[in-house]
Amino acid sequence: MKPVRLGILGCGTIGRGLVELITRNHDVIAKRTGLGLEVRRVLVRDLKKERPVDRALLTTDAPSILEAKDIDLVVELIGGTEPARTWIAQALDAGKGVVTANKAVLAASGSDLFRRGRIGFEASACGGIPILRAVTEGLVGNRILALEGIVNGTCNFILTRMAETGCAFDAALGEAQRLGFAEADPALDLDGGDAAQKLLILAGLAFGVRLDGVRFPYEGIRNIEAVDIEAARELGYVVKHVAIARELGEELDLRVHAVFLPAVHPLAHVRNEFNSVLLRGDAAGDLVFTGRGAGSLPTASAVLSDIVEIARDGAPWRPPESSRKLCRDFESKYYLRFPIIDVPGVIGLIATALGNHGISISHASAALVPEREGVGNVRILAHRCAESALQRAIEEVSRLPVLTRRPVVLRIFEEEGASGW
Amino acid sequence: MKPVRLGILGCGTIGRGLVELITRNHDVIAKRTGLGLEVRRVLVRDLKKERPVDRALLTTDAPSILEAKDIDLVVELIGGTEPARTWIAQALDAGKGVVTANKAVLAASGSDLFRRGRIGFEASACGGIPILRAVTEGLVGNRILALEGIVNGTCNFILTRMAETGCAFDAALGEAQRLGFAEADPALDLDGGDAAQKLLILAGLAFGVRLDGVRFPYEGIRNIEAVDIEAARELGYVVKHVAIARELGEELDLRVHAVFLPAVHPLAHVRNEFNSVLLRGDAAGDLVFTGRGAGSLPTASAVLSDIVEIARDGAPWRPPESSRKLCRDFESKYYLRFPIIDVPGVIGLIATALGNHGISISHASAALVPEREGVGNVRILAHRCAESALQRAIEEVSRLPVLTRRPVVLRIFEEEGASGW
Repeated sequence: MKPVRLGILGCGTIGRGLVELITRNHDVIAKRTGLGLEVRRVLVRDLKKERPVDRALLTTDAPSILEAKDIDLVVELIGGTEPARTWIAQALDAGKGVVTANKAVLAASGSDLFRRGRIGFEASACGGIPILRAVTEGLVGNRILALEGIVNGTCNFILTRMAETGCAFDAALGEAQRLGFAEADPALDLDGGDAAQKLLILAGLAFGVRLDGVRFPYEGIRNIEAVDIEAARELGYVVKHVAIARELGEELDLRVHAVFLPAVHPLAHVRNEFNSVLLRGDAAGDLVFTGRGAGSLPTASAVLSDIVEIARDGAPWRPPESSRKLCRDFESKYYLRFPIIDVPGVIGLIATALGNHGISISHASAALVPEREGVGNVRILAHRCAESALQRAIEEVSRLPVLTRRPVVLRIFEEEGASGW
Repeated sequence: MKPVRLGILGCGTIGRGLVELITRNHDVIAKRTGLGLEVRRVLVRDLKKERPVDRALLTTDAPSILEAKDIDLVVELIGGTEPARTWIAQALDAGKGVVTANKAVLAASGSDLFRRGRIGFEASACGGIPILRAVTEGLVGNRILALEGIVNGTCNFILTRMAETGCAFDAALGEAQRLGFAEADPALDLDGGDAAQKLLILAGLAFGVRLDGVRFPYEGIRNIEAVDIEAARELGYVVKHVAIARELGEELDLRVHAVFLPAVHPLAHVRNEFNSVLLRGDAAGDLVFTGRGAGSLPTASAVLSDIVEIARDGAPWRPPESSRKLCRDFESKYYLRFPIIDVPGVIGLIATALGNHGISISHASAALVPEREGVGNVRILAHRCAESALQRAIEEVSRLPVLTRRPVVLRIFEEEGASGW
């Protein structure tokens, strides 16, 4: 049995899950792989804090892990960009393999780190779903044409609860927080930043391009109300928060935002905190991978798969050096909702402003908000048009004095793609 | 660039897809992996048949591939047990890697072949879905508790069409044959044999046991009628043909048959010819992998992923040597349909016979078959009971003179498991 001596940086939720899993499944893993996993040291900030981990393993001294001769592989689970970046670099420079679950550091400076040595990062996107392995190994013979994913469990939980119970956003968020599916400060999840970091990692692998540090448009779900979800249902759609990457000619279209998905789309059925990623390969066709995108043991499961892969000495993964132009415009159909003061002629005002920018409308309706006198919503379905034109039109409408808040803009996903489902 | 010289046995649908894919994506694969894939020879039966493959590559001489010094890796795509088994063994004994898409030969004599050398067999189960890789690599740190899969595209296509259009079995089968989703002789698919072979391969990997040659109960879908699918819908279920493997204490429960799946089960939404496999890991939780389980390019995509893995010289996979007792009984709720001659008291007769074996009933109804005078069906829902008791009861009922055909027995899947979906 080949021993694999591990140093773990951080002993939070994932660190504890990893130690538990290595203890529990040590023999199963040894039988399958011939590897004897051994946790040598665990870096913590506070030695006195109660933890379900052998105290003799704990240390507050990072160099005793990063520079130690008796550590083969360093697992970075502290999160954030610093000191994570520095420590990962140090461990790689000392010739150790590194496994990380840290999407922030990879989205910011992955390319630099990848050049220094072997990094496993399956756990950095979509937790327990072996999606990176599917991209780099299972689909290695395919050109990947598109990737669409529900990659933020918090957003998906909230949208699912709103759709299934008819509750308001704040109630769904409160429930997510109570169940541990949303942080006390949920901004990174709700505003799309978390999904954007994951998309950079996924799309970089799928399309073989350097994307760390790249900026692209992303949106969250804070402005979505029950009325939008109801409108989607009436039209045969489901509102989901998705990360999208696809080839548009020579360019790459990267986006994160809520969309109207057709009810038969494979991502439309993904409920609660689950994640799901659709990959479209030129040979394999559409593949969908669904599972738990976060949580202690699912993430530890992904970390463990990387530990085994690196310890088995598989061929190093070569970071792509090429870059690619991002596409700055695209076309879509749209669902628009304009919160308004209810005065006669309001649909005409809005429709005219949209028309001024060439946006043509297939459906428009106005309704009052119950229990709020004189306040309502105009809901509009717009035919396929350019996002840039739509945004200019939205700017003009937003200046109308009848508007009470920013309009809600949701793209309607009409691609056939997974039509067989 | 490291050259990988390939000899391909067989140039049918998959062989042609593989040659096409290697030609089309040669440069992408080289960039990603550093490997230069090169098709050296392709074994065919008839040199004169028209094929979209360079004629200079074709040969009718198997030894010129199996024993050739200028071939690194042999791809077996002829199917069936012989001469496939002999040729695979010969290539392995000559020190070559082998990639195969042949589930029949692995289900029959996998263990013997695995001992001889390195075999890639991703394509042997669920075509383009990288499911074997998910089991052996992505979930390497998990104990797998259960596996449930829609692994036969023909059955799933037929059941989907029957459910969505209300058509009869024969009409759906005809449509599947016209679209190329069913063979001219569809027995292996419709009677469950194909799914059973795939289950042996999947469960052997997932549970780390030798299963080739093992016998276990499997059923097909030929006796399912529109009336059964309608009954399922009324109760909130969907009829699907699934392969099941799960731990029941020390034993392994292996089964292939049609079931009533709850409409919220992740496999319930898998439509048409698609395949989908749910894996339940002790750490990762429920993971679902969905995609095309057959077809030229999807299967070639899986073959290609194995070629790359073996050529990169990854650690050899160790075949499990342990075996495990199969479980011979289990408990379930049941949907039963008894085709009958409509006489007064028929429900009483059937219910009494079931009661004689301790089968208790939650619901019973009788209905005439439209346009067939005096002929009807009694449909019964049975509470949870042992399969063995149910089978004895069915034997007794089958002897009643009011029965016109064999009863239809479908297990009702009530496991929560993937309850989050």
